Amino acid sequence: MKLRVDLLPDSHYPDVALVIDVLRATTTAVALLERGAGGLLLTRTAEDALGVRAVRPEVLLAGERGGLTIPGFDLGNSPVEVGEAAVAGRQVVMTTTNGTGAAWRAAQSARHVVLAALINAHAVARHALAVASEEIAIVCAGTDGRVGLDDVYAAGVIAEYLLALGDFQVDDGARIALTMRRGGGDPGEALRGSGHGATLEKLGLGADVDFAAQLSTSRLIPTLVPGDDVPVGALRFLAG
Amino acid sequence: MKLRVDLLPDSHYPDVALVIDVLRATTTAVALLERGAGGLLLTRTAEDALGVRAVRPEVLLAGERGGLTIPGFDLGNSPVEVGEAAVAGRQVVMTTTNGTGAAWRAAQSARHVVLAALINAHAVARHALAVASEEIAIVCAGTDGRVGLDDVYAAGVIAEYLLALGDFQVDDGARIALTMRRGGGDPGEALRGSGHGATLEKLGLGADVDFAAQLSTSRLIPTLVPGDDVPVGALRFLAG
Ligand SMILES: [Ca+2]
Ligand SMILES: [Ca+2]
Ligand SMILES: [Ca+2]
Repeated sequence: MKLRVDLLPDSHYPDVALVIDVLRATTTAVALLERGAGGLLLTRTAEDALGVRAVRPEVLLAGERGGLTIPGFDLGNSPVEVGEAAVAGRQVVMTTTNGTGAAWRAAQSARHVVLAALINAHAVARHALAVASEEIAIVCAGTDGRVGLDDVYAAGVIAEYLLALGDFQVDDGARIALTMRRGGGDPGEALRGSGHGATLEKLGLGADVDFAAQLSTSRLIPTLVPGDDVPVGALRFLAG
Repeated sequence: MKLRVDLLPDSHYPDVALVIDVLRATTTAVALLERGAGGLLLTRTAEDALGVRAVRPEVLLAGERGGLTIPGFDLGNSPVEVGEAAVAGRQVVMTTTNGTGAAWRAAQSARHVVLAALINAHAVARHALAVASEEIAIVCAGTDGRVGLDDVYAAGVIAEYLLALGDFQVDDGARIALTMRRGGGDPGEALRGSGHGATLEKLGLGADVDFAAQLSTSRLIPTLVPGDDVPVGALRFLAG
């Protein structure tokens, strides 16, 4: 089995793609499903999200640009805020700066797409190994087209779990992620030491960074489930 | 002063760009100048290199594709081979799979472009700090569009020297490179443990990997020097 870590989204994912935007989109996605959201619909743009609500008025809209809630949306991209919101049974449409784009990119080719974070790292690793037939690719969303230490560190955590579970041929991206995991301090230090973690702290969102730094507190695996009933312009993720 | 490490070539370099293709183009470039080559002309394609020779028959051609010497060229991309070749006083036209493309990319915007490797790491760091006014960007060439551990490790070595010499605001790429430097073993282990290092070993080119892993054995700084006398389709680098 191959293990590949893309420090930024690439293309041609033949098998399993684990998409990471640990600060904060994929962490928030797991938190939403933990709170009982009935499903997530990821759109690339705010316009697409509003388009979904136009035909499905019952959905909640969650999303950020530049770290802040999009005007007119019900929720931002904060896992802490989500933990206090009434989302049980609701479909949530999400759009974020980096994470949703990365999920869309992976979904163009991958057979299995899963949203991964530190809070579901162990569950995601076990799931990936169970469904993979040739390759597990960990896809770091990055921040505005640049490599993010936060995502690479989280990739290293998942890579480390995978290496404990099976035998892999690893690429240089995986070697780099593993070294970051081993030399980058504990998850809180690593996320707070990343450029995007520092930006969130400055925006008063340090509690989100601390939330995202929790290791394997959830067993939920947001899994791409296409279907005729998914609105155009959206990717549907259900709790797996 | 800002310190930025791009794990793959990006764009918009406002100031200093240190281009690294440690296995092997930038190591070979330093070795050629050490042997007394009168200058380097980097072209993106083998056709462009042959075009330069058509108008300047006295030049030597050096280059590889897939690690092997290009048919009809005088030299490959081997720093060890270059050490035994009669290059003194000769202009050498180079074209390689990743390094020359990265240099071209940086040259589109950077005010100062330098070819950097482990063998000239310390000299390059001092030079960069002397000429920079706002940012030093270390540009990793990567391998066929993917991040290469070898280049990231070398970037970490140069970043470490820079941090010893001055105060910098560092980005996530620099933090990752520094962690690779500190957690990646000695230079020989790091380069041999990279995907491209392993490929070169398999091709019987392990001596080149060992050569490239030497730290700061040269004080030469291949520096981009444009001019009216530079052939179209070539970037000229002179010993600085
Ligand atoms: Ca992010
Ligand atoms: Ca995001
Ligand atoms: Ca290379």
